Amino acid sequence: MKRIAESTVRRLSLYLSFLEEKDQEGVTTISSDDLAKLGGTTSAQVRKDLSFFGSFGKRGLGYSVKELAASLRQILGLSKEWRVCIIGAGKVGLALAQYKGFRERGFSVTAVYDTSPDKIGKPWDSQKIRDMADLKRDNADAPFDIAVLTVPADAAQQVADLVTGSGIKAILNFAPAQLIVPNEVIVREVNMAMELEGLSFALTNSQE
Amino acid sequence: MKRIAESTVRRLSLYLSFLEEKDQEGVTTISSDDLAKLGGTTSAQVRKDLSFFGSFGKRGLGYSVKELAASLRQILGLSKEWRVCIIGAGKVGLALAQYKGFRERGFSVTAVYDTSPDKIGKPWDSQKIRDMADLKRDNADAPFDIAVLTVPADAAQQVADLVTGSGIKAILNFAPAQLIVPNEVIVREVNMAMELEGLSFALTNSQE
Repeated sequence: MKRIAESTVRRLSLYLSFLEEKDQEGVTTISSDDLAKLGGTTSAQVRKDLSFFGSFGKRGLGYSVKELAASLRQILGLSKEWRVCIIGAGKVGLALAQYKGFRERGFSVTAVYDTSPDKIGKPWDSQKIRDMADLKRDNADAPFDIAVLTVPADAAQQVADLVTGSGIKAILNFAPAQLIVPNEVIVREVNMAMELEGLSFALTNSQE
Repeated sequence: MKRIAESTVRRLSLYLSFLEEKDQEGVTTISSDDLAKLGGTTSAQVRKDLSFFGSFGKRGLGYSVKELAASLRQILGLSKEWRVCIIGAGKVGLALAQYKGFRERGFSVTAVYDTSPDKIGKPWDSQKIRDMADLKRDNADAPFDIAVLTVPADAAQQVADLVTGSGIKAILNFAPAQLIVPNEVIVREVNMAMELEGLSFALTNSQE
């Protein structure tokens, strides 16, 4: 498969969320124009994005909402269940562990880890917070696909080293720190502080 | 001021977080080379990013860590306190309401809103969850700078309309939905599901 840009993958996610919404509303077909409007792009871009993955829709008839949604789920790797562990049992980590939006999309949080003796063994959902020292062994028994890092910035690199050293190949990083990882490991970042600073920058400069 | 690209503002955030780390470690000066390495960019890029905002550092001596950090805080609008409200008192909303990382950076969560009678009036921290119907009146009394949306995708647009209709000019959107807002309103998105789908896409295609 050709190398697909991250921005394309983001739009596919967006198209899928609209298609699922339309499907729930009982809509059966949708034009590339409508998809484009919903995604804030052009119909040419929609057709180009989808063309990477084969041929969809019929000229003049648009796309079948159900079929295109199923194809996008397949393309995005959402037709299987991904095993996710959360590293860092703070408030954000525990909220994410129980976040319904993850499970609905096939991301199943099966373990939460921490290093603090105050937290290890404490309950979350129907489980117990595990000891970070057991991550490598646990991952050898039943591998995790994705580790979500919700640890302080100054611990993030050390934790990332433990995660990749355990053999986990994908990280969703909530810590405001740039991680250095082996080439074969994929990292995505959710940097809330950075987004807020983007807002404060824009507010400051629009008020001048 | 010239229009500054979002990517530049993101790098400024990153430089600031490194400078604060270095300051805590007792480091007093830093070269553009070191800043570049920490930020995964080049020293030329660092100098260009900073040049938008005036003249920093001395040739051959590098930057004063404390001075540059203070300037970046000023540039990013972090030298004042921003009043933040959170809309949506679910697990993620309440975790964010108490997230220390926000307050440390001058983002002060002063209210949490919901529409559900089950949640309105319930305590969080030392406060009570407020009724969404009061947002406009509350904002007229003591304006919020930023609204953080932690509501389901299908409610997001309606909530965004109420937020902008109340006069709030900046939104941090956690709902997996593209918001349509008036031109003068700034929106930043934190889309966790989309980041996870980016990972599942990459994992799926690297395994083929």
